[in-house]
Amino acid sequence: MDLVEFNRFKVVLESVRRLLHRGATPNLRNILSKLHPADVAQLFKFLSPAETYQLFDVLDDHEQAAQVLKEALPEHRMIILERIDKERLSQILNALPSDDATDILEDLPEDLRAEIIARLGIRQSASVEEHLSYPEGSAGRVMVTHFLALPEDMTIADAIEEVRRAKKSEVFYVYVVDDEKRLKGVLSLRQLVMANPSSRLGEIMVTDVVKVPPTADQEDVAKIVARYNLIAVPVVDSEEKLIGIVTVDDVIDIMREEATEDLLKLAGTAEEDITTSSSLKSVRLRFPWLMITWVGGILSSVVVAAFSPTIERFVYVAAFMPIIAGMAGNVGSQSVAVVIRGLATGRIDTSQLWKILFKEVRSGILLGIAYGILLAAFAWVRFGSPLLGASVGISVCAAMTLSASWGTLLPLAASKLGADPAFISGPFMATTTDVAAMAIYLGVATALLNI
Amino acid sequence: MDLVEFNRFKVVLESVRRLLHRGATPNLRNILSKLHPADVAQLFKFLSPAETYQLFDVLDDHEQAAQVLKEALPEHRMIILERIDKERLSQILNALPSDDATDILEDLPEDLRAEIIARLGIRQSASVEEHLSYPEGSAGRVMVTHFLALPEDMTIADAIEEVRRAKKSEVFYVYVVDDEKRLKGVLSLRQLVMANPSSRLGEIMVTDVVKVPPTADQEDVAKIVARYNLIAVPVVDSEEKLIGIVTVDDVIDIMREEATEDLLKLAGTAEEDITTSSSLKSVRLRFPWLMITWVGGILSSVVVAAFSPTIERFVYVAAFMPIIAGMAGNVGSQSVAVVIRGLATGRIDTSQLWKILFKEVRSGILLGIAYGILLAAFAWVRFGSPLLGASVGISVCAAMTLSASWGTLLPLAASKLGADPAFISGPFMATTTDVAAMAIYLGVATALLNI
Repeated sequence: MDLVEFNRFKVVLESVRRLLHRGATPNLRNILSKLHPADVAQLFKFLSPAETYQLFDVLDDHEQAAQVLKEALPEHRMIILERIDKERLSQILNALPSDDATDILEDLPEDLRAEIIARLGIRQSASVEEHLSYPEGSAGRVMVTHFLALPEDMTIADAIEEVRRAKKSEVFYVYVVDDEKRLKGVLSLRQLVMANPSSRLGEIMVTDVVKVPPTADQEDVAKIVARYNLIAVPVVDSEEKLIGIVTVDDVIDIMREEATEDLLKLAGTAEEDITTSSSLKSVRLRFPWLMITWVGGILSSVVVAAFSPTIERFVYVAAFMPIIAGMAGNVGSQSVAVVIRGLATGRIDTSQLWKILFKEVRSGILLGIAYGILLAAFAWVRFGSPLLGASVGISVCAAMTLSASWGTLLPLAASKLGADPAFISGPFMATTTDVAAMAIYLGVATALLNI
Repeated sequence: MDLVEFNRFKVVLESVRRLLHRGATPNLRNILSKLHPADVAQLFKFLSPAETYQLFDVLDDHEQAAQVLKEALPEHRMIILERIDKERLSQILNALPSDDATDILEDLPEDLRAEIIARLGIRQSASVEEHLSYPEGSAGRVMVTHFLALPEDMTIADAIEEVRRAKKSEVFYVYVVDDEKRLKGVLSLRQLVMANPSSRLGEIMVTDVVKVPPTADQEDVAKIVARYNLIAVPVVDSEEKLIGIVTVDDVIDIMREEATEDLLKLAGTAEEDITTSSSLKSVRLRFPWLMITWVGGILSSVVVAAFSPTIERFVYVAAFMPIIAGMAGNVGSQSVAVVIRGLATGRIDTSQLWKILFKEVRSGILLGIAYGILLAAFAWVRFGSPLLGASVGISVCAAMTLSASWGTLLPLAASKLGADPAFISGPFMATTTDVAAMAIYLGVATALLNI
């Protein structure tokens, strides 16, 4: 089913709703068996929590239920996990690759998680435990532990036989390892098909393999996969032993997640804010960030109050406070956005700090001069005071230059120090530039107007 | 070479620089032949324009030069395209899949582009022309036209023979078509390897193929690939004829590009702002967006000036102008970010408009009440005026509720109307909420304080 064919999807949704209300389980099963698990998971978006669980409960095939649970959004998964029988959950999780099972278990409270892990098959529970031993967001957490690793002296014919027997539904690469499981080389399935059946893997394998350690940040793994156009990247431990692979479909999820995180962090909130329908949760996520704005705003009020004699005498000065803060804030956001996405996509590099900073300073000055002249002209004409014109003109130029530099320096410095550049939140930028812009403007205006 | 191993990269970079300066072409060729094209393209980031071209010129293998050009960032590509001999460029472009050749040609001025296309091989120039006939950002533009399409009655053994002969370096799927080239089914390479060699493709192919039209938006194509965990998606025309495939590595580039575009649009600038080192170009990109802020700021100044009697009488009123505008602006950005990324990742849907809007209104009210109380208390204590406290408290609450609703409604409405939700730029949001917040605050303060 195409995304484009939303109307067909709606027809399915309506049938599912009707059958759910009638409790027509066999008919439902019939419909669901024809849908891709990702499409079943889409249905949840339009159902109530009770209906969501009811629909999931209809799936009697553990394999299908597992895939649906994997594809479901976190909030729908939670609805199902809260209601599901533990025995059934263990069976479902046994049907999933261990990385996906881990991903689902991560959402559960610690004690419930331990209980479910204990009920899993021995191999599966060991695998899940191994995944959980790596930090969240690392290659070890997202890697798949089912892969095809074959010895160097195996013949191509035997390797093809192994591919046939492999349980993994999609095999794209065959990894070649020595007796100690150390990664020696890689072969694509096509290279395997093309080779002479009697040659040995070691003779035709590619030995220059791009690989990552299990502790690598998932964002770096995604960058490597994107850079070398890979379908999967092997994960090797400190002894070069092959312990898993990160596949491209997980990389797509990682990139999407990271992009979402960047944008939301920059706006001062978090990913859960998208998926929650609870305003209380949303408030909990946003409140701390807005506190930054609040504290900054209080500082601004102190700055402005300090200049109250000027404002009292020349009341029109107050009229330009919002525009000066606004211009400075927006030019700062532009710089922050350019640096953060430049770093995320690898287009800019912290080693170029000075080059980028000088470009931003120059842009800030040029934009500041242009808007300074415009605003000075407006203020002069509107209030007939050339000195007010000069004050707003100089202030806009100074505040915009400062903001552009500040918005470049902060994320670049964070990244250079090994921190996440997106920690430079929008609220923090906005509020610091606000305070600075007010101090500059009212300072300049006081100096000039009192001449 | 790992991204992690930046130090090794630096050593290579230093050698390349030294050899470039000495003009030691054979040694350079030796080093470059051992590097992945993506890594050669990385070197450009640290070289001057003259050195960049000099290094590219060293690559005498057209195949390698083509891959390097493909992997190079737009700004480095431009440096090379401006200097390269047209004959050589045609040869290089002949060595690329037509989608990549098109991608490179897109950057050239129209007349130069036409000249180069005329010099390409007949098949390649026809393919490039076909790509260019689809709109920018469509599946037709990014699809690969080299794929393996085989007839239904072919045996598995013969199909494997075709895979062996195929020129395409990585084949993952085999597409099954009828005599009219209409897409009938698909088989993964592994399914092919697993099948009985004497069966026919038509017997074992998967017939329920996820496919897209050439006019599909590349963002929708990326969503489909992500949703169904595909390695490639076939592109079929209105007669169901298979005309190309979009591969997962292109999807990764598309997703990254779209995420970058969203964030930069939201900040009020464009992707070129990352790659350009020219501040003049950067100013050209940012100036129009800042004009929105400027016009909004002028409106704010008119609003504030209209209330100058209040400000003159109660000068401390001016002190709270920045904080009220700031709180409203930031809560609005949070809503915009949540809606835009929610839509981009498919987690929220325009059909849920009212549900999402109500959640945002509730969050806005709750945050407004919390911060309203905090600010009212501060203002009352600081300036000893309960009426000022009431004014700022009520205004923050009203302005935050309004901003949260506005920031939700605008992108959702844009998306519902088929427009890009990210067109709701940050500057536009910031400036409209600023004007509204000033009007609310000064209106409320005037009413209350003049009692």
